[in-house]
Amino acid sequence: MTGRFITFEGGDGAGKSSVLKALHDKLVQEGYDVVATREPGGVEIAEKIRNVILDTSHTAMDGRTEALLYAAARRQHLVEVVMPALSEGKMVLCDRFIDSSLAYQGYARGLGMDEVYKINEFAVEDCMPDLTLLFDLSPEEGLARIAGNKGREQNRLDLEKIQFHHDVYAAYQTILEKFKDRISVIDASKTEEEVLQEVYDTLIPYLQCD
Amino acid sequence: MTGRFITFEGGDGAGKSSVLKALHDKLVQEGYDVVATREPGGVEIAEKIRNVILDTSHTAMDGRTEALLYAAARRQHLVEVVMPALSEGKMVLCDRFIDSSLAYQGYARGLGMDEVYKINEFAVEDCMPDLTLLFDLSPEEGLARIAGNKGREQNRLDLEKIQFHHDVYAAYQTILEKFKDRISVIDASKTEEEVLQEVYDTLIPYLQCD
Repeated sequence: MTGRFITFEGGDGAGKSSVLKALHDKLVQEGYDVVATREPGGVEIAEKIRNVILDTSHTAMDGRTEALLYAAARRQHLVEVVMPALSEGKMVLCDRFIDSSLAYQGYARGLGMDEVYKINEFAVEDCMPDLTLLFDLSPEEGLARIAGNKGREQNRLDLEKIQFHHDVYAAYQTILEKFKDRISVIDASKTEEEVLQEVYDTLIPYLQCD
Repeated sequence: MTGRFITFEGGDGAGKSSVLKALHDKLVQEGYDVVATREPGGVEIAEKIRNVILDTSHTAMDGRTEALLYAAARRQHLVEVVMPALSEGKMVLCDRFIDSSLAYQGYARGLGMDEVYKINEFAVEDCMPDLTLLFDLSPEEGLARIAGNKGREQNRLDLEKIQFHHDVYAAYQTILEKFKDRISVIDASKTEEEVLQEVYDTLIPYLQCD
């Protein structure tokens, strides 16, 4: 038996992480065997790679280096966390995955989505998501939410200029076009409770059919 | 004006590093503008990536993660050291490059040379070596040299079993077949002085024509 692999995608501030946590709790209460995770997911090697990526002193980091590091951390998290859970028949909810690299490195940083897809294909091998939930929220609203959320730590990516967030938004629209079969759009402008319900309603059919 | 990019390849213990250093000194004496380097080459980001790779506690590291990390460190070293030197018209002598990943990760670890080539193509972009010197020495002799060289620090790769070194040797023969135009074979079983002379004689035509 193989579990279901569900990824959460979207621009910063779209509320993915909060809804993922709430969904996890709801599904556990209903008796599902669920793992909630995000890269690097407490995996020591992947954590160390992420530290190299997010170090704010690394202003000399080349875009291709960064994309390869994200792919490396992804691979290790996949091997140590996602694959074992799936092979035990669990459902895995993952905050960001391959589409984030396509959007951020491939499109917004201009490395090319096809190029970035190639190195991520190498990283992911045959473990692609069964379903991807794309949290749709305008970049302006996303940025406003980040600015208002004092508890969230700011990292190097948050400091990029606003145009970057617009590029990420456009990138996700392109990704949606390309991978229609795998991706469902979630209206992230609603209240958290409404979004949770929409996510739940979208997800349930994927859990019941095999 | 663009300089010449020369890479040194071969199994462990083949004497690449000593000959590279001696060649560098000889060429500098003759008035050439030469940079001798090896990944990670003192580049901070690449050094940190290499630390993650070579940490002997990382026994859980997946082969694909390792290959992506090597590609990431390669990219950063290329951007910060090799490309600037080449664009200043310098000659760059580099101890190990893309072929090491094809041999070690692609072939000996069984990830597939074509697969590993893809991620390295992404890393290297259009900066391939003008000439690669393949130091040819039997794996037995290479291992014997390593064992006799007390000054050299042992790392995780040195601890791999002997079969691995045989695989690396076979891999380089395959790479030579594939990239005949770029690679010259050096008989590394001779004395260091003789090897230096052979390397010098091979190299000189590449420096004189443009």
